[in-house]
Amino acid sequence: MNALDEIVDSFSRLPGIGKKSAARIANSLLNADSSFMQRFSSQIAHLQERIRPCSICGGWTEVDPCPICADSLRDRSVICVVEQAQDVSTIENSHTFKGLYHVLGGVISPLDGVGPSQLRIAELQQRVNDGGISEVIIATNPTIDGDTTALYIQKLLESSDVKVTRLASGIPAGGDLEYVDRLTLDRSFRGRTSF
Amino acid sequence: MNALDEIVDSFSRLPGIGKKSAARIANSLLNADSSFMQRFSSQIAHLQERIRPCSICGGWTEVDPCPICADSLRDRSVICVVEQAQDVSTIENSHTFKGLYHVLGGVISPLDGVGPSQLRIAELQQRVNDGGISEVIIATNPTIDGDTTALYIQKLLESSDVKVTRLASGIPAGGDLEYVDRLTLDRSFRGRTSF
Repeated sequence: MNALDEIVDSFSRLPGIGKKSAARIANSLLNADSSFMQRFSSQIAHLQERIRPCSICGGWTEVDPCPICADSLRDRSVICVVEQAQDVSTIENSHTFKGLYHVLGGVISPLDGVGPSQLRIAELQQRVNDGGISEVIIATNPTIDGDTTALYIQKLLESSDVKVTRLASGIPAGGDLEYVDRLTLDRSFRGRTSF
Repeated sequence: MNALDEIVDSFSRLPGIGKKSAARIANSLLNADSSFMQRFSSQIAHLQERIRPCSICGGWTEVDPCPICADSLRDRSVICVVEQAQDVSTIENSHTFKGLYHVLGGVISPLDGVGPSQLRIAELQQRVNDGGISEVIIATNPTIDGDTTALYIQKLLESSDVKVTRLASGIPAGGDLEYVDRLTLDRSFRGRTSF
């Protein structure tokens, strides 16, 4: 395998990049600035040293604790529980939430052999027990595994005096009833709100 | 800009990768094997040293002359002229051509300020003058610039005794007349063949 095939192979392992896109990218790199190439290669080489999980929330960060956990201006009484570290940036980009986060690192999934002990659930319970938390918002995906995990956490925190809530599931904004699947429609009925 | 944003920025400069795909890739790299990361980074760092243009055909190669130019089993009397080095692998992958190649490194494009002297056209003429060539197949794209370049090369080689041909342009195999554009249909009529 020559150097070009090797790099095409590496690119095609990345999510969303097929064999053809990988070949196109590799060819474009042959014509790229050598300064870009050196910078790009060093960014990849050092990525995992520079970005690590925050010891409190589990989100990706360059400093520990992460800027969100360290920010005294955020609402420190609300924790939003997400599946993956990248979900934190998705929510941050929407500017809709000003509390703290807790990354589980996955969902309970018996089929994949993932149980509660492999997730950062004990750490969440510890944060709640440490006090100062009034609400835990569970933002796992509205899938079977996401719902199972949400329910598990809700049961776990039932005895504590924090409010446990779940993100609304229903018709997406700008969506059309005609194109909404049965399960989403069912959820939007069950979660209906009064004016 | 933190390390994650920097790498997202680099990935989004690659062809066909938008901001969202770049973020998805960067996040997947955070969870990747560190051995993959070191291999990937070194492939990028050394790509441009390892892969260079062949001094004869101009295609990308690790050895000079490239394996195609050095292959005595190929038909050395036919040269296929392509725009870009990656066109060589496209044609090679089709296993439809067994001659040699010549990469122009672009097309004549007055609007972009590219004239014949910026392309490897003099080198092509030299190869033809050196003798042993019976046919030059011009495989530039069937675009205005590709056609202009083809015509220019055809005029240039008119005085030599090589046959100059052009790849057929027409309805793609498996295509449907109904969805073919007017220009392609026009070309398929003009290039019609007898049974």
